[in-house]
Amino acid sequence: MINTFEDEQVRTLVELVRVPSVDGTEAEVAIVDTLAGMLRAEGVEIDRWPIPVAEFAARTDFPGMEVPRSAALGLVARLPGRGGGRSLMINGHVDVVPPGDLAAWTDDPFSGRLVDGQVFGRGTCDMKGGLVSALYALLALHRSGVELAGDVLFSAVVGEEDGGLGTYAMLDRGWRADACVITEPTGLDLLVANGGALTFRLRVPGRATHASTRTAGVSAIEKFYPVFRALRAFEAVRNASVDPVMARWDIAYPLEIGTVRAGDWSSSVPDLLVAEGRFGVLLDEPVAVAKAAFEDAVAAACAEDPWLSGHPVTVEWWGGQFASGRCVDDGFVARVARADGRSPVSGGAPYGSDLRLMSAAGVPTLQYGPGEARFAHAPDERVPLEQVHRCTETLVRLAQDWCA
Amino acid sequence: MINTFEDEQVRTLVELVRVPSVDGTEAEVAIVDTLAGMLRAEGVEIDRWPIPVAEFAARTDFPGMEVPRSAALGLVARLPGRGGGRSLMINGHVDVVPPGDLAAWTDDPFSGRLVDGQVFGRGTCDMKGGLVSALYALLALHRSGVELAGDVLFSAVVGEEDGGLGTYAMLDRGWRADACVITEPTGLDLLVANGGALTFRLRVPGRATHASTRTAGVSAIEKFYPVFRALRAFEAVRNASVDPVMARWDIAYPLEIGTVRAGDWSSSVPDLLVAEGRFGVLLDEPVAVAKAAFEDAVAAACAEDPWLSGHPVTVEWWGGQFASGRCVDDGFVARVARADGRSPVSGGAPYGSDLRLMSAAGVPTLQYGPGEARFAHAPDERVPLEQVHRCTETLVRLAQDWCA
Repeated sequence: MINTFEDEQVRTLVELVRVPSVDGTEAEVAIVDTLAGMLRAEGVEIDRWPIPVAEFAARTDFPGMEVPRSAALGLVARLPGRGGGRSLMINGHVDVVPPGDLAAWTDDPFSGRLVDGQVFGRGTCDMKGGLVSALYALLALHRSGVELAGDVLFSAVVGEEDGGLGTYAMLDRGWRADACVITEPTGLDLLVANGGALTFRLRVPGRATHASTRTAGVSAIEKFYPVFRALRAFEAVRNASVDPVMARWDIAYPLEIGTVRAGDWSSSVPDLLVAEGRFGVLLDEPVAVAKAAFEDAVAAACAEDPWLSGHPVTVEWWGGQFASGRCVDDGFVARVARADGRSPVSGGAPYGSDLRLMSAAGVPTLQYGPGEARFAHAPDERVPLEQVHRCTETLVRLAQDWCA
Repeated sequence: MINTFEDEQVRTLVELVRVPSVDGTEAEVAIVDTLAGMLRAEGVEIDRWPIPVAEFAARTDFPGMEVPRSAALGLVARLPGRGGGRSLMINGHVDVVPPGDLAAWTDDPFSGRLVDGQVFGRGTCDMKGGLVSALYALLALHRSGVELAGDVLFSAVVGEEDGGLGTYAMLDRGWRADACVITEPTGLDLLVANGGALTFRLRVPGRATHASTRTAGVSAIEKFYPVFRALRAFEAVRNASVDPVMARWDIAYPLEIGTVRAGDWSSSVPDLLVAEGRFGVLLDEPVAVAKAAFEDAVAAACAEDPWLSGHPVTVEWWGGQFASGRCVDDGFVARVARADGRSPVSGGAPYGSDLRLMSAAGVPTLQYGPGEARFAHAPDERVPLEQVHRCTETLVRLAQDWCA
């Protein structure tokens, strides 16, 4: 077994957690250079480049960005194979979400404190634990001098949390592989598919009048409810029978209203309600098909209401517009499971990651990484070191098998 | 018949409409001095005083103020009777609401343009038409030299639109009468009662989670609906049988939700919905009784819901808290009807005016004035001059009868 340098991994993980690489901050740029420096010092071949953020943001296929960001770096490390073998990419993101309410944390969110075999702090689970697993799998292979036929690539990306800028930029630069593992936290299960998610806005019209003569008007709040009920029924129909890979979820493709705003005076009948929400896209469902089905459901609800049939609710698609994604190469999935050696659970999830961008680019991709997703974006975020080490070992075995 | 100076009234009305006396502006102060000047020039006895706005605003019985205002004037004119008779007050407000969307107006909102026997402009109907009727009734009596037994008072008040500052200040200064006519627009019908209105805020709790796992949370938007339905049912019960004076209304005591705000992210389950609305108070119903009934209805709705029973909706009373009011002296109402001579329709209304403050102070008060209420607060507001003149004549006859 190749040495995976467990103590060194822990020190590096703590060091990286202490860099508060929140999306859109200078630290998000700096942490890429920290990794680049480590790889250079080892003599690993790297590609480090400035990402043309403004140019990308203007493109129609750009996956979106939810924080301001003028500078960003791309970084791919490569262990060249001797030729004739399959390549493997290991992908991890360096960005983390803000710590939120500091009072909810037991400790400094960027402490990287080690307690009972777990490292605590924002980004430990999502996903610096997985990032360090990926980094040390590559370094371990490099230091061991083992010769593989295919290339092994390590891609450290920014902006995963707010759209996928880093993976988009990496694919745009031409980096590809025959398969990819993203070391997002899965508790070392195999996550082989993501439902998509479309952000929508509804505008429900009413007719204003003074509340003291309310029957002369039409309340947009009251008229929203038939639409809300119709969307709940529409969600139920779409979840009545789902792809087996999504079967473990209560609702595999959730449709939820996240915000409503209506009225501007307590004593008026409100003439407009604006609702925003999130609509789950089925596995393998084209985004245009999902949008049309949603618009039809809203139109059908309006047609049944005396007021809305003449004043229909409008649908606007804005914000994140993410397709679903899935790993289409079952052979690769089986190899990862075998490298793990523990018969890991395999399934899909209703939330997204860069898996969708990799899949759309034709790269069979799955998620497999240390930590529990429920700690992601939460206070007292943590990752168990035992899983970090096991992930590293799996990745080393996988590369030796897949790229042999 | 005493001369009521019809041509002069029209000129004065146009002049007063051209003063844009919007609540909280300098023009609201200035127009009181314009009236004071006219009365002084005629040799009418007046009381003009600065209202201690800040002092009043700190009092618990202050009816409220919805615009910032540091300066305000009070004005009462008095034709002293020879003694031994009943006094009559005629009350009108000088303030007007803002013109709103200028594009919705055919003309400058403060033009005072005369078209086909109607004067157009913000405040014509609500209520400078009535104000001029009241002013000329007093001037006509003064100029005629007729001797009455009781005093005739003309009170020109500010701040009616945003709470009742002017009438509150006038009562605070000690001005009273044996009866009062407010010349608000009624189309020369007799408005003898007002339902009250309480402004409330509801807070509906939910439980936040990511929309992709929505069943792990509780949507505050979804949980608002049983409360909304319960309030509609509560309104129906309160309107099942109403005082005959309110019987002509579709809903005499409307309860309406004017605004809702929920959620701060389209892809989260919203954990709080805040709704604000207006709750109608029954004639003669104490405000405390109305509030308790409302709170009970909300609590009963919560008790029936599995989530809300453990996380109840809270009710906050804020903004306008207006009791109902009614004219308790049927003899006075009959005198006004007789002075009008046309058997005017008599009834109550669900919206408020200074009637409630006058009634609460023990002064039998009704509304009777020119113009249609539906033009109030609307673009192309207007008042028919024929009604302005008829109102003046009625008020002169009423004073000669009531104060004889």
